Parts: sequence; C-alpha cells; structure tokens
Amino acid sequence: MNRFASVVIAALMVCLCSASRADEGMWTFHGFPFAKANAALKTRLDQAWLDRVRSATVRLSNCTASFVSAEGLILTNHHCVAACLAEQSSKEKSYMEDGFLAKTRDEEKKCQTQVADVLVGMEEISAKISAATAGKTEAAANEVRKATLTRLEGECEAATKQKCQSVTLYEGGQYWLYKYKRYTDVRLVFAPEASIAAFGGDPDNFQFPRWCLDMGILRAYEDGKPAKPANFLRINFAGPAAGDPVFVSGHPGSTDRLLTLSQLKQQRNIELPQWLLRYSELRGRLIQFSATSPENERITADTLNSLENGIKVRRKMLDALHEDTLLARKAAEQATLEENVAKNADLKKKTGNPWHDIDVALATERSMFLPHNYIENGAGFQGRLVTYARTLVRGTAEREKPNGQRFREFTDSALPRVEQNLGAAVPVYPELEEIRLGNSLERMREWLGPDHPMVRKLMSTESPAALAKRLVTGTTLADPAVRLELWKGGPAAIAASTDPMIVLARNIDADARALRKAYEDNVEAPIDSATERIARARFATLGTSVYPDATFTLRLNYGTVQGWNENGTPIEPFTKLSRVFERATGADPFRIPDSWQRVKDKLDMNTPFNLSTNSDIVGGNSGSPLINAKGEIVGLMFDGNIHSISGAYWFDTEKNRSVAVHPAIMREALSKVYVADNVLAELAK
Amino acid sequence: MNRFASVVIAALMVCLCSASRADEGMWTFHGFPFAKANAALKTRLDQAWLDRVRSATVRLSNCTASFVSAEGLILTNHHCVAACLAEQSSKEKSYMEDGFLAKTRDEEKKCQTQVADVLVGMEEISAKISAATAGKTEAAANEVRKATLTRLEGECEAATKQKCQSVTLYEGGQYWLYKYKRYTDVRLVFAPEASIAAFGGDPDNFQFPRWCLDMGILRAYEDGKPAKPANFLRINFAGPAAGDPVFVSGHPGSTDRLLTLSQLKQQRNIELPQWLLRYSELRGRLIQFSATSPENERITADTLNSLENGIKVRRKMLDALHEDTLLARKAAEQATLEENVAKNADLKKKTGNPWHDIDVALATERSMFLPHNYIENGAGFQGRLVTYARTLVRGTAEREKPNGQRFREFTDSALPRVEQNLGAAVPVYPELEEIRLGNSLERMREWLGPDHPMVRKLMSTESPAALAKRLVTGTTLADPAVRLELWKGGPAAIAASTDPMIVLARNIDADARALRKAYEDNVEAPIDSATERIARARFATLGTSVYPDATFTLRLNYGTVQGWNENGTPIEPFTKLSRVFERATGADPFRIPDSWQRVKDKLDMNTPFNLSTNSDIVGGNSGSPLINAKGEIVGLMFDGNIHSISGAYWFDTEKNRSVAVHPAIMREALSKVYVADNVLAELAK
Repeated sequence: MNRFASVVIAALMVCLCSASRADEGMWTFHGFPFAKANAALKTRLDQAWLDRVRSATVRLSNCTASFVSAEGLILTNHHCVAACLAEQSSKEKSYMEDGFLAKTRDEEKKCQTQVADVLVGMEEISAKISAATAGKTEAAANEVRKATLTRLEGECEAATKQKCQSVTLYEGGQYWLYKYKRYTDVRLVFAPEASIAAFGGDPDNFQFPRWCLDMGILRAYEDGKPAKPANFLRINFAGPAAGDPVFVSGHPGSTDRLLTLSQLKQQRNIELPQWLLRYSELRGRLIQFSATSPENERITADTLNSLENGIKVRRKMLDALHEDTLLARKAAEQATLEENVAKNADLKKKTGNPWHDIDVALATERSMFLPHNYIENGAGFQGRLVTYARTLVRGTAEREKPNGQRFREFTDSALPRVEQNLGAAVPVYPELEEIRLGNSLERMREWLGPDHPMVRKLMSTESPAALAKRLVTGTTLADPAVRLELWKGGPAAIAASTDPMIVLARNIDADARALRKAYEDNVEAPIDSATERIARARFATLGTSVYPDATFTLRLNYGTVQGWNENGTPIEPFTKLSRVFERATGADPFRIPDSWQRVKDKLDMNTPFNLSTNSDIVGGNSGSPLINAKGEIVGLMFDGNIHSISGAYWFDTEKNRSVAVHPAIMREALSKVYVADNVLAELAK
Repeated sequence: MNRFASVVIAALMVCLCSASRADEGMWTFHGFPFAKANAALKTRLDQAWLDRVRSATVRLSNCTASFVSAEGLILTNHHCVAACLAEQSSKEKSYMEDGFLAKTRDEEKKCQTQVADVLVGMEEISAKISAATAGKTEAAANEVRKATLTRLEGECEAATKQKCQSVTLYEGGQYWLYKYKRYTDVRLVFAPEASIAAFGGDPDNFQFPRWCLDMGILRAYEDGKPAKPANFLRINFAGPAAGDPVFVSGHPGSTDRLLTLSQLKQQRNIELPQWLLRYSELRGRLIQFSATSPENERITADTLNSLENGIKVRRKMLDALHEDTLLARKAAEQATLEENVAKNADLKKKTGNPWHDIDVALATERSMFLPHNYIENGAGFQGRLVTYARTLVRGTAEREKPNGQRFREFTDSALPRVEQNLGAAVPVYPELEEIRLGNSLERMREWLGPDHPMVRKLMSTESPAALAKRLVTGTTLADPAVRLELWKGGPAAIAASTDPMIVLARNIDADARALRKAYEDNVEAPIDSATERIARARFATLGTSVYPDATFTLRLNYGTVQGWNENGTPIEPFTKLSRVFERATGADPFRIPDSWQRVKDKLDMNTPFNLSTNSDIVGGNSGSPLINAKGEIVGLMFDGNIHSISGAYWFDTEKNRSVAVHPAIMREALSKVYVADNVLAELAK
C-alpha cells in the first residue's frame, strides 16, 4: 500500500529535498567531497582514510566485499556467494540449504567463476578520448572510442601487470582507467543456511524491519597461498549507535539518475514492462517445476532467487516511473539545464540539441527493440548451454581480429574472464535448461510473430519445446573440457562442429551481428554523442558538484544510522534476535534452521540483528562494509527498504534506507550456532 | 514490430481521422444513425431491417451468436462454446481436442452454464434514476441508484415475464431497461477440433492473414423442444466481395473510449501492469503443469487459452496507452469539452469540475487498490472452489435482505443465474485448483506484505501452497449437490459448515465487505457522479452524435470488407484454404487435424477461409454475424487484427480490422470434412 500513499508524501517532499539532500551521492574516490561530508557529519576524514578504505574494499564479479584479515579473509553477503554454493551443489546436496563451514584451510572450496579485485589506481583519460573522436561522425566516433579504450586498457595492462578497465562516468562526460589487483583464486570459507541468511525470503526482500544473517566468508589466494592484502578492515562487533556517522565503500551497479525524460519514459513504456512480463512468466514456470520434487527445488533455488529479486526491483522501478512527482522533478531539472544552455551562445553552439537527438535515437530503438532484444541480446535464447554456444561461436571469430576491432567483451583484457567461465566446472541441469530455452524460444515466436524470418528459420517444423529438448539433449557443452577444446580449436573447430547448440549459434550469429551493428550505429552512437554533450553542459553550469551515475565502480557515500517515518509510524533503525523467533511460522521462507533451534536457549535474545541507515546504495553494493569514522566495520550492507528501489532514479531523502547485518549477530552466530572458532580467531587477530 | 512503427503512422493519422472516421461506432439499436450509414454505404437500411436483425441476434453468457434456423440452431464461435466443451470433457477425453458432432438431436449435449438471450424491448429510465438520486450526497446517490435499478428490474420482470436488465450508457449519461427472452436450455450441436478452430494458437491470435475455422453450433431448447425463434438469419455461403457494405450485430463487451485522461493513466500505471504481472506468472505455472502429461494438458487447455488471450489483449492495451499520440488526442478532446463547459455559465454551474473530482477519487483508489483487488475482488483467492465458497457465504447472507438492499449480483433478477452456476455439474480438477489458489495466495502475501492483517490471519502458520492444498483437499464443494444443499440451507447451514473452503470464505467476508463499502463510497460514488456530469456536458455540446462505450449490450456497426496497409504492404481481405496446408508445421499450434488431412484431396483449395472488415468490434462481439445489406450472414466474427486491440480506447480507422470466418469454408468443412449433412440440411431449409 505504501507505494500509493507515497505519491502524496513525495509531493510534499519536493520542496524539502534541496535543503535535506546532504547525505545523497555515490561519490568516486577521486571526487569525494571531504569538506561537505566532514561538515555534515562532524568527522575528519582525509585522503589517508580514503586510501586505506579503498585498498581494503573488494569487488567480486557481482557484488562488493572487504578484506577482514591479514590472511585474505573476505566478508560479503550470503547472496553474493550463492553462485559459488550452487556450483558446489548437486541435486542431492545443497550447500544453499545446509550452509558450509571450512574448519581448516584445506576444506575451503574454490569458487569456479569468482574473482576479487582491489582498486589500486585511477587515471583520467577524457582528453585522449576527445582527441581520438574529434571531428568524426557519430557512428565513426563510437567505433573509434571503443577501439581507443581497448588500446589504452591493453597498454596499461602491459605496463602495470594489473587488470585495467576503462570507466565511463557521467554518461560520457568523463573517461577513466581504473587499475585493479585481481585475485582469480577465491575460496569459500563460511556460509549459513539460506533459511536464516534470507529469512523471510522474497516476501521480506526489500523490507525493513528485517532479520537476515546475509553473510558469507571467502578467502583470496595468491600462488596457492592465502593472500596478504595491502589492508584490511577490523570488525567492531559492538556495532554503531543510532545517529552515528557511517560510510559505505562499494560498487553500486547501475543508476539512471542523469537520464533524460525521454530515456526514462522509454524504460517505463518498453524496457521494464517487457522484462517484467517475460520474467514473471519464467518465475511461474520455475516455481511450478520447483514444486515437483525436493531435487528440483534444490536445482532451481539459486536461479529463482535471482529472478524474484529482479522482479521486485523492476516492478518498484516501474512504480517510481509512474509517480508524477518524479517525472515532474526530472522535467524541471532538464528544463533548467536546457535554459542555461540556451542563454549561453558559446555553450549552445557546442551543445546543439542533444535532447532532440536522443528522442530521434529512441524512436529508432523502439522500431528495432523486439528483434534486437530477442536475437542479439538473447531474450530468445536463455540458459547456460546456449550462452556457452553463442560465446564460443562469436568469441572464436572475434579473437581472430586485431584487438582494437573486436567487440569489447572479447578484447585481450576481457578474454581471461571469458576463458575462466568457459572452463568452470559448474553443474548444468538439463531440465532447467529445457525450461529456460523453451520458454524464451516460445516468447520469441510470440513477440516477433510466427512469420518473422528468424522464427521461420528456427521453428518452421519444430515447436519451441521440441527444439529446446533436441538442443539440450543433443549438446555436449555441459562438459567444460568440450567447451575448452572448441575454444582452443578456434573458428575451424566451430565450423566443423555438429553439436546442435553450436549449429544453432552459428545459424543466428550473422543476423544477430547485423542487429547489433544497426543498434550501435543508429541508437548507441547518437545517444552517446548526445549524453556526452549534456554532461559537458552540466559541468559547464554546475561543475562536478553532481556525482556520476553508478557504474559498478568504487564509490563512497556518507550518512548516519537512522530509521524513517512510514506514513506516521516511526521505524526504528535496529531489530533484535528475539523477534525472529516470534516471527517464524515454521514454513519456508519463515523457517529458522535446526542449528539455531538447537542452541536457542544459549542465544542472547537482545542481540541486534539488522540495522538501517540512510546510505545511498543500490544493487552491486551488496556485501559492502558499513564503516565508522575510525575505519572499522560496523555493519554489512545487504539490502534496502522498499523505498530504496526508486534510488535508480533519485534519492528519496525521507524514506530511502539501506539495510545491513549487525556485527553483533555475526559474532553470536559464528560463536554459538556455527562454532566457527577458527574464523572468529582470525577476525580477532 | 508493428507496434513501434505505428507510432509514426498514428502521428500522421491524427489529421486524417475526422475526415475518414465514417465507419467508427458501436451504435445502440435505439440510436442507430440510419441516414449517415445509408449515405456512407449507399444502402437502404430501415427500422424493419433493424428489428429483424435484432430479433435473430443472440447474447450468450460470454459472446454473441445468431439464430440460423427455424428450429433454434445458433451459430457462434468455437471459442464461445469452449467452456461447454470443457464441461463435457475429462482428463481422458477432450472435446476441445477431438471436436463434436451430434448426428441426431438426441446426441446434442446440454451446456451446463450457458444461456441464450434475445433482446425484445428497450425502455429509457434515465429520468426515473435522476429523480431518485436528486439532491443526495454522492455515496447516498450511489446506493439509491442501485436500489432503484433493482426495483425497476424486478417490476419489469414481474410485469413482462422477460429477463430485465438495466444498462448504463455513456458512463451514466443514460439509463435503460433492456428486456430479453431468455433460453436456459442450450445444447451443443457441432464443434470442430481446436487445432483447426484456433489454427496458429496464441502466436496467431489477433493476427491477420489468418486461417481459423472458429465456429461452433448450438441449439436453443424451450420446454424440452427445439426453440422456434422469432427470426433467424440465412447464411449466404458465397460470402461478400471486397468493398461490400457489411454490418455486425452483437455485444461488444467493454470499451473505455469516453474515460478521462486520468482514468486512462490509472489503467496504464496500475491496473494493466498489475494484471499482466499476475497472469503472466500464472501462465508460466499452467504451461509448466500442462507439459507434465497429456491429461494435464487437456485439463489446462481451456483456462490457458483464455489467459493467453487476456494477456495479449492487455499488453496491446498497455502499448496503446504508451502511445503519445493517443494520449495527446484524448487530452485535446478533454480540453475542448472543458473549454465548452467553461464558456457556458449555466452548464458550468451544473457540471462543476468533474475532472478534478475524478482525480481525487483515483488517488483514493490508488491508496486502497492492492487490498481491494486482492481481498474483495478476489485476486488473492482464485479458482472455482474458492469462488463457489465465497458465492455461498455472501449470497446466502445477501438473500436474507430486502431485494433493494442487496449487492446487485444477488438481486432476485440475478439469483437464477447464480443458482444455475452453483448447480452446474462441471468438472473441477484439484491439481489446477491448487495451482491457482496457491499462486494467488502467494501473490497476495507478496503484494500486501507478510505483515498485512489478512496475510497474518490466513498464513501465519501455513505457507500459501500448504494452505491451498489443505483447502482443496478438504473441501467437498466440487460436488454440485453439496453446493446446492448449502445454498438452500442458507446462513444457518453456512454458519454450521466445517468445510475448510467455507471456513476460509467466512473468515475473509467481513474484511472484504468493508473494503467494498469503502470503495463504493469513496471511489465508485464520486466517479459515477463525475462521469454522469461529464456525459451531460457532452450531450449539451455534442448531442448524441457520439456513441456510448461498449457495455455487453446489443450494438450495430457498419463498414465494408477491406484489408489495410501495413507499413507499405497492402494486406488483402481474404485468405484461402491452400495456404493453411503450406503454413502447417505439424506441431501444435500449427497442426492440421487428421480429419482434414484424410480428405485433403477432395477439398477445394481455393475456398476462402477468413476475411477482414473495418467493423468496429471488440471482445464480446465474438460469434457475431457479419451481415450484408440484404440481412444475410456473410461471415462469422471471431477476432481482430493486432491493431484492433487499441479499439479499447479509440478506433484506428487506418489499421483497426476485424476478422471473420468465411461462410464458404464453413460449408466446405461441414460437407467434406465433418459430413454434417444433418446440419447443412437444416441450414438450407
């Protein structure tokens, strides 16, 4: 109900925002507003504090984490190690259900597809990109920009032996090279049972008050030995007090706060509804399949959890875009910028009319959205096996080209991750593959229509389900050795293959490439050109007082421990252990695991469980350390409240709250429930 | 892809519409514009023609149909007799799959839940309603209006012995009493296999060119003997020529062409996305369940077909509401009316500001949408069994009240249909019931949240799936005798029942009633008052040159046989039999049944199959006769093209086309495939 009531509240809020938006912002580590933050919080952060936090913060492939011991222990969320748990599991044994604890280092299990990156350097390359693209047409500039980024990354990696990745900030207003120390050997140390890690499951997801032990512990290895990180953060198990200044260092994945009004409407009208329809249906199929046996429930759990999280996020994003106040505010901001440009003849000349240019490109995008999304973007070809096949077909072809001419996902810098994923021994469940591929083929036929050339090519004599069954049954790509052999064999091996999934991928690649080319030239290129001009106009009128949208690169924000007021009801920022026992129903997802029930009498029921802060975070920040002014960990970020989802588009100062695991419950659980003395001892060193 | 391209076309179209909108309109039989229609089509329709067509047109419970013989044969669509086919079927035998033909009258099968109504009289009662509600508050007026309609219906039924139903036209601008001759004994005579009736299935639904034998034949009985209708229409098996004037007599179910801009946005932002998400997920569950065995496929088919049709309709309605040109046109029309009101002091005084009043009521609706939709409207309680339980609990209580004080669905006039449905011996499949109820309970918990009082009341110790299983397993309401006994036993029997489904329905009824009361007083009442004032303002400025929105009451429209231009490609208005054989893939839903394959050599491949016209129809018109100027049937309406779905909001003259079965293919199939000589002979009499 809150979503509707918030229309009224939001209307009141508009006039308060500018006064109280002090805590908003996902600041880069090269643009952190020390003076503003220290003044707001009465703290004394300095560059040394920032450097220490940066070098202890870890980027996982999908999340954030932090080093918490001198021997490479990494603290993150349970849901950030879920893929690793799933990789280790089978139909018969689920580490998601049962949890895991390595009592010795020998027992630690390697996560096949995980990496851990630490940011060690940042270099602005905006001028180099500008020089390379100057005077080019939009489509040519787009190609040259990518080739230049590829070249600079390659030169950086050769020179530094670090992982170098380019970063586009402010929708093209700035370009940077970020340099990482990468650990490719990451092992699982501890995870609790999913039933307590995600107590409340999907119903409680994005809710607060909350009771989730959403923690997991990994260890980075280097040359087969526990890594010695440059820095680590100590956990302060007492946790923070209400009102304490707190900081979140992490990698917010993606926000769209600087998009134009038309771009937001395109999300609202096309992208979000289409995604939600497709995945709501898949959710239904997976729930139904999952209910048929405990084994099927086990093999579906990880996929279904991700899916349900994605659905909740997107439906609240859609709600946000339906709030008139949000769009009115965006329209006003855009109008102000347009006016400021119009007033300045020089700026007007440089800027042109990027808002109009974007509208034209968006109309082009609409005209090709369905085929591009289904064929090139893979909405019509879902599942691990078909994704392996497409990667093999395309990757082997791209690898033959000079580095600068390849798609960006197959540059020399990107290839090690491609190979890691192709070679990872992760379980593939044919039943799930059939459902996902069959469903996506069927939806492609529905949305493109039975007479679309691609649909006729693939499904003129077979139903989507029959085709999916034949491909999944006939392929041998579930075997990593087969994948690596094809990868090493290159284009000749791919051309010679009779594997039906490879045959399919070969069949669609040319059409898919043509769609990508048309999209890049006619949608991406003009939008990139326009957003870059908007960013420069914004710099010219507002400076860099605005933070860039999230890009899954390192950011810091500042705020305080606090709850909020939910339609007149104050929400306190801490929850306690006692309540989780009162709230349990015995049935999933409100079931307390036996390990906790057994030691219930020994537990301190007053232990704080979760807490909320006004930190400005989004997905990708999962696993981020919540840090106090002394640089100690006082919480482990894992979620936001329901209002936080609109954070994709704006920061709602009154109601957007993030949610963390309290350190006290981590200690209580590690000590009394899991008896993880080895872990606690290492954390105390 | 067309949906996006049509943005551009629609923009061009706005300036053409007023010139070419001659064929638009769902005209009542008491307001048909003879002069305009005859001038446009060079025909000479008169009142006698109209009366004859009216008295041969039939309203089924969900569709339209027409009498086609002197002995009560009724022609309609296959999908209009699908429920009857499903009622006769079981896990082992599906009449949907296999089709049905009664070679003698004894073999005709009674449809348990069907009725056939023929409109025999129309009386305007606007003045009586105005008199009753004058000077009342909105909430009081709303109650008095309903009580008055109930009273007038009762008096009419007592006086005429006909079925009397009130009709609200122009969103409250006019009230009428429609009088029907009702046949409650309707039997199945013929239906082809679903694979040819719905050739192309969901992928081809709302597409043209098309090849569907979407026909079914019923017979009305009276006093156990074939009915003798006042009139019937002859089928002209030669069919029409391109450009011929044609008329559709039928019952368009619902359109929203007269809604305000805010009401359209409420649909776009709240109602349509929520519906689509819920049912897309259910679709996934049903598809997955259906795939587990041929029996499960059989028992799911009818539900899934309806669901997929509903999804396609609503996703194209949502697309329509995302077209800027549509909303701009609506805004302009609304602004013109507002200006006309503002210019006229007297009109301004009578009208007030209904647009603002609607906005306020819509904000209230948003604040209670979720609980009202899940609890009172039943989004949280889906399936036949729970619906029986809720009808029994509420209906027995309502029946105790004086007629005028009851909910409108339980007035004396409505009770016979309630009893027919409760007593109908239709199959109930527990597996399907569990899926539907479990899914809806789970979504209620998701959307209302685990801490909503209703969710806590029902699911604090049971999961949604466990609760659904217990209720479906424990109830005896699948037995019509049990239902009728409870119905006859009244409130005492309900109070004494320990049937778990009845217990559930008792548990939720008070909360549901409170939500209904709040909704009626604070949303429905002010909106009804406002829309009535808007309708009167429209009459005052435009007269009745505007037709009312569709209300599943009898309408006539006029047009011609024609195709359209699809982005530069002309679409011809006729398809041929030969193409269906070329298009078949052998796999459902593109599979030609064996009965056709066997006689393939005897069939005339040039036989016209389907045709398109520019008739302005929507759902509810299914089964309508397509009539030529002589009053002969020259087609059987069953669908529209993809552009027709936006007909909910406006009539797109350039592209909105309806789709009919050609009479020639009906004769070819009845004669050569089904050897239904008895039917053909009766049609020829």
